[in-house]
Amino acid sequence: MEIEERLALKHGIIERLTGIKQRYYMDDHESLDSMASDACSETIVRSGIDPAAIDMLIFYTEVPPTIRDKSDLLNRTYEVSAHIQATLIQKGFKIKCECINMAGSCVVFISALQIVTGLIRSGIKKNVLIVGASNNSTFLDPVDENVFMAFGDGAAATLISASEKKGFVDFHRMTDGSGYDAGYFEENNKLLIDRKRVAEFAPVAFRKALNGLLNKTGASMKDIDLVIPHQAGYRIIKNGMDLSGIPESKVYFCLENFGNTGAPAVQIALSSAIEQNRLKKGDTAVLVAFGIGWNYGAALFQY
Amino acid sequence: MEIEERLALKHGIIERLTGIKQRYYMDDHESLDSMASDACSETIVRSGIDPAAIDMLIFYTEVPPTIRDKSDLLNRTYEVSAHIQATLIQKGFKIKCECINMAGSCVVFISALQIVTGLIRSGIKKNVLIVGASNNSTFLDPVDENVFMAFGDGAAATLISASEKKGFVDFHRMTDGSGYDAGYFEENNKLLIDRKRVAEFAPVAFRKALNGLLNKTGASMKDIDLVIPHQAGYRIIKNGMDLSGIPESKVYFCLENFGNTGAPAVQIALSSAIEQNRLKKGDTAVLVAFGIGWNYGAALFQY
Repeated sequence: MEIEERLALKHGIIERLTGIKQRYYMDDHESLDSMASDACSETIVRSGIDPAAIDMLIFYTEVPPTIRDKSDLLNRTYEVSAHIQATLIQKGFKIKCECINMAGSCVVFISALQIVTGLIRSGIKKNVLIVGASNNSTFLDPVDENVFMAFGDGAAATLISASEKKGFVDFHRMTDGSGYDAGYFEENNKLLIDRKRVAEFAPVAFRKALNGLLNKTGASMKDIDLVIPHQAGYRIIKNGMDLSGIPESKVYFCLENFGNTGAPAVQIALSSAIEQNRLKKGDTAVLVAFGIGWNYGAALFQY
Repeated sequence: MEIEERLALKHGIIERLTGIKQRYYMDDHESLDSMASDACSETIVRSGIDPAAIDMLIFYTEVPPTIRDKSDLLNRTYEVSAHIQATLIQKGFKIKCECINMAGSCVVFISALQIVTGLIRSGIKKNVLIVGASNNSTFLDPVDENVFMAFGDGAAATLISASEKKGFVDFHRMTDGSGYDAGYFEENNKLLIDRKRVAEFAPVAFRKALNGLLNKTGASMKDIDLVIPHQAGYRIIKNGMDLSGIPESKVYFCLENFGNTGAPAVQIALSSAIEQNRLKKGDTAVLVAFGIGWNYGAALFQY
């Protein structure tokens, strides 16, 4: 409703157009670092892991990194993952590990999961914390109402540990570079998206990602309990579902609560599905994501 | 000499202070994308690989991504790795694969190598192209002469393939987040470095990276034919060497030809050592890197 007022739109129109009822914008004390380190602390505490046993921290975002100095948000490309580690140590978590940064559109969580699966299966790492965060609200321009009304801010952290259980089974991840210019941050401060190209590409990418994964693994939709897609928008997901022939009952939605949070959206959806007990222990599930680049990918896992 | 004129310094002083005789600055037609895709094409052609067999492309940089529109260099955070793929396709290389972006200080190549080793050993990927590029010259401010005279631009691409040979043996990679603010790009356009903190940290990190790797692998310096360090500056490398007790005869230098090219510097040094036949088939070698974060790491491999 606040956003409808800001854009001088009728009440109710955003929910009708996008399916979004609410979203979060970071406040004047939050930042990429604070959102990401809050998500990490919560995940560390909930999982019960000894922070010293974490041997890698992967941070990712699609937005240009900024840093908070008291209430000022400064534009600054810098070592965000190292900053998150420093903040966690300040909070009392004794975490001492390799920290890396990934940058990329809404499929980067799938790539990070695949990387971690490789590192764990080959015995190089044991416990990896993946954290995604985005403050899209900083980069929204009211001139493009459609982009403005779609995005929210958010973060999610997931701990992936070596285990005898099945866990991540397989991945299908692909890039078709022809979409590299369909979305970007102009002057590093304004998010511009070619919505027409994205709306055409995204449902096809949804199908390509899902079908590629099913073909690769030999799984079929009847083996899958839940599909957790990138929360790009209700219509995009609906078109992707229809193209792929998946019933809505098997698809998880949470964009009504968060909007499109960009790169971390599919990881936030995974966390939300677990929290709402929509994803249950033993379930076989698929993550599906697609984004600027064009990038698309899917991951098959047993929770 | 041109740089000495620009900074109003005496002729010969830069070489005396830094050991740098020359460096490259990208010209008005070059960009991150063009430098990176040129390096990729050359590596693909030299290796003789069928581009269709490449199943992953990893791009990394430490600078804020920019894009060239004719002769204008635009500030734009965007999907660089997807752009590189599109450019390679335009050049006639039929490359169809996952493309990802990493962001980070001068140790990111070591992290990328470790990631690729995990993906290849676990059978997830077979042929991965790692490309690093930086146009530091865009972000240099003559107000800080010491930073200005140290940096150059550059790119390097390396193809890592599954093989029965030894290849990458092991890694030691660590972050101490207390240095996250020792270097950054202010307003995404000006490189600021706390040289005092870096000069203190870097030689210690050199030793920690190298000793950590030797302890982990049980190797000793007599097993190592060549140490290829991040080309941060002659004094930093010399202090690191002295602290670690390595003779200069085992250390590869190329900063006289390139300056400090930032994140890709250690990868450029690897390529240069191969090209100059300083690194020979069968040699056991170590890559050592350290950078803002603080990050440090080392990789043991057989060429």
